[in-house]
Amino acid sequence: MRSTTLLLAAKRFASQGTSRVSGSSTNPAMRFPCLDKLEEITEHLKSQKPFCNESDVAGNAQKQNKDPIYGKVKSGFQVFESDRPLFLDYGGVLPSFRIAYETWGKLNNEKSNAILIHTGLSASSHAHSSDANKQPGWWEDFIGYNNPILDTSKWFLICTNVLGGCYGSTGPASSDPADGMPYASRFPMLSVQDIIRAQHRLISEHFGIDKLYASVGCSLGGMQSLCYGQQFPDNVQKIVSVSGCARSHPSSIAMRHVQRQVLMADPNWNRGFYYPTQEQPNRIPPHIGMKLAREIATVTYRSGPEWESRFGTERLDDESPPVLCPDFLVETYLDHQGEKFSLEYDANSFLYLSKTMDLFDLSQSHLARGERKRRETQRVYESNEPLVGRSFVSDRPRAMKRHRTTSTEEARADLARGMAPLLDKEILVVGVKSDGLMPYWQQREIYDLLGGDNNRKVKFTELAESDSLYGHDTFLLDLEHVGGSIGRFLREGS
Amino acid sequence: MRSTTLLLAAKRFASQGTSRVSGSSTNPAMRFPCLDKLEEITEHLKSQKPFCNESDVAGNAQKQNKDPIYGKVKSGFQVFESDRPLFLDYGGVLPSFRIAYETWGKLNNEKSNAILIHTGLSASSHAHSSDANKQPGWWEDFIGYNNPILDTSKWFLICTNVLGGCYGSTGPASSDPADGMPYASRFPMLSVQDIIRAQHRLISEHFGIDKLYASVGCSLGGMQSLCYGQQFPDNVQKIVSVSGCARSHPSSIAMRHVQRQVLMADPNWNRGFYYPTQEQPNRIPPHIGMKLAREIATVTYRSGPEWESRFGTERLDDESPPVLCPDFLVETYLDHQGEKFSLEYDANSFLYLSKTMDLFDLSQSHLARGERKRRETQRVYESNEPLVGRSFVSDRPRAMKRHRTTSTEEARADLARGMAPLLDKEILVVGVKSDGLMPYWQQREIYDLLGGDNNRKVKFTELAESDSLYGHDTFLLDLEHVGGSIGRFLREGS
Repeated sequence: MRSTTLLLAAKRFASQGTSRVSGSSTNPAMRFPCLDKLEEITEHLKSQKPFCNESDVAGNAQKQNKDPIYGKVKSGFQVFESDRPLFLDYGGVLPSFRIAYETWGKLNNEKSNAILIHTGLSASSHAHSSDANKQPGWWEDFIGYNNPILDTSKWFLICTNVLGGCYGSTGPASSDPADGMPYASRFPMLSVQDIIRAQHRLISEHFGIDKLYASVGCSLGGMQSLCYGQQFPDNVQKIVSVSGCARSHPSSIAMRHVQRQVLMADPNWNRGFYYPTQEQPNRIPPHIGMKLAREIATVTYRSGPEWESRFGTERLDDESPPVLCPDFLVETYLDHQGEKFSLEYDANSFLYLSKTMDLFDLSQSHLARGERKRRETQRVYESNEPLVGRSFVSDRPRAMKRHRTTSTEEARADLARGMAPLLDKEILVVGVKSDGLMPYWQQREIYDLLGGDNNRKVKFTELAESDSLYGHDTFLLDLEHVGGSIGRFLREGS
Repeated sequence: MRSTTLLLAAKRFASQGTSRVSGSSTNPAMRFPCLDKLEEITEHLKSQKPFCNESDVAGNAQKQNKDPIYGKVKSGFQVFESDRPLFLDYGGVLPSFRIAYETWGKLNNEKSNAILIHTGLSASSHAHSSDANKQPGWWEDFIGYNNPILDTSKWFLICTNVLGGCYGSTGPASSDPADGMPYASRFPMLSVQDIIRAQHRLISEHFGIDKLYASVGCSLGGMQSLCYGQQFPDNVQKIVSVSGCARSHPSSIAMRHVQRQVLMADPNWNRGFYYPTQEQPNRIPPHIGMKLAREIATVTYRSGPEWESRFGTERLDDESPPVLCPDFLVETYLDHQGEKFSLEYDANSFLYLSKTMDLFDLSQSHLARGERKRRETQRVYESNEPLVGRSFVSDRPRAMKRHRTTSTEEARADLARGMAPLLDKEILVVGVKSDGLMPYWQQREIYDLLGGDNNRKVKFTELAESDSLYGHDTFLLDLEHVGGSIGRFLREGS
């Protein structure tokens, strides 16, 4: 890599023109080590063999699965394969699909002790270490034998990689059976309800479980958890939603919108077609766009008070002149978080699932529209007509609309109707005061829509700022309050 | 532009490969009209003659000023030129500089009725329409003859384009006298204190005003307004700071950091050297990076409750399949805001002033360090040694530091010491509850640091959410509460 670095340095010097020759400028030119580094990563990726190919792949699950697997989770999970088509709420179809999953503990004879764990946007099925994958999982300390939160001596825990993800489940990096090429941006848009219907096949068809003891999830997983109860009210007993919501809020949509636009502006994203192919083996993933999108996401995942106490407004070095590359401690933190993630996750999975979160809505009208679209798609699909080019799935001219057309009251009544199937479920809703992405009042809204203080089956826990400064990410970190509430709720009456 | 569009469409089709041929994919490929549009703008800019050249420039002020002037504010202002060097807090120097300004009303014989208005980051000196420029200004309704807020029958109002900006004042797009080429990223970093010292020359040397009646500003202008009192306590009577702060907060730094990184990742930014030159006449400005940065900024300027009431979670068309280009109403709003700004403001001015805001700090230690650096620079400069290459202004290896090294208590005491010169000034501090960028508690902090309830000269006004849902941008919109408070404060005792 050294010669690449020197070459880049020479190119940079040349591109800056003669005006940069020392002595001919009043003040020194600024340096951009952060951009140098990105250019080095680009050059390095270009000089690699395609980063996702069969020789890369190890483990049993991968033998059935030739799609690229991102990050470090390349083995240690099982794969459920469904050969029946999955018709989708927005008019698309998956002719078949895979769900990657892991389990901990033992399913009892009555099949009554299963808990389904839903992940956040970018996590894999690896919630906890196992013999097949000894790496710590993303909820390592929340799970274990005799663990007071998720006790594997008692429960049978199942965690899946979300449909649309890139850790073994079918997603945009998977092959479209129509031509064997990656779906890329030909992947159909998913709703959270679609994701749940896919998961339900795993639970009912593969495991033969009629009724989950519980559905537990945080963030996107919190949405899924509520959605499981909405879609299959008879097939789940208890529901836990931490830092989720009943419907996305425009300010969360705004924050995810900018992440997507930044990622899509990376020329390497190439409208989704960045996977190396036989013809274009040197395509590289949009690592710069992913880094930037993750930095923005990180701003929404953590909280200002935490940063004040960790970083304040200190710079790496007060005596050096300020630079536009990371300089303040909080900037170096964001930079590090972005870089770490930039090659760990598939950009298209990120884009699709980010949009799926925006679209999340438990409203009745949303359900009805999805059902109608699924029936239409099924009819076309079963008559062997092509879906491509049909008006109901292609873009039609978009009306210009500048303001909402339904009132907040109508929208709320619609939401309450859609949530009716949840009214007699045992539900725990957990919110975090320092969470800016899924604020505590969105948790309070779920609680109120479910009857609030008038419904003894619904519990609401709110973490004050003194309990957690970790914002949206609290669910990954807080064993005492988040973990404690979940553990108590699951043990009750069991 | 039509042939360009067709060419682009053909190129896009080709780049997507054979897999996109209709019929060979299960679901239709997604379309990206937002990316098509960006490509069209790029092609259009490339086919234009350099966008900033002398023939572009009209008006008297411009005759003296051959630097590019951005956006619509190309004339109608005056220019103050200072030929004495300005030594800067971070070790740089401007051998000479210009300040663009406009005035309204008449300076009285005693020169006691002048009010200096400081702008936000991206505004020009055009706060109000005038004979020279009849376009409405950015504070049009706050200013006028017999206007209850800023009354031109009574006061002499001065508004400047901030140093570092691109509306007539010296900034990164200006020529470096050392070689006549644009400063670009050879421009020295500015502190808010530097900006104030430049403004003070205009006030004292050009206008001969010894004491301003008031210094008034919002956002960056609120920082400047306080800073004027800190730097020149004897030369200003009243101070108004709306949605400012005494020191930037790490969460604001984080939000501005991501804006800068996104902009710097645009290949057209070219490390700041995007201005067309004789050798490279076809350089174009980083319009995509600017659009994205402005979209992120807009998220911080407005508020969630406002978006909920304006847009809710409605999409342009619920029957069309969701797309990754703007789709929800809130997305089309952000997209529009970003695009509007993308060619209206100089990218380097945006980067430098955004960083200047991050660096804003009224602390004593910050002042002392700046004073020391300015003396060092002056000594070198006056001995005719080159500044370029000297260790105190170039990058030195940066220590790795992961956590703050001073406590919040020490930092606060430092801040209080730095603000001591403000203690006997008449000050109005205005905060807005729905402001997420400069939250009301940062306004409360200013008030408390100035003695709070024990200092009768300091006034604090806080706008509840019921008063304004407009977040940080409230200062541009709210005549009643923001305007009313300012008007009353200025009239008191006058």
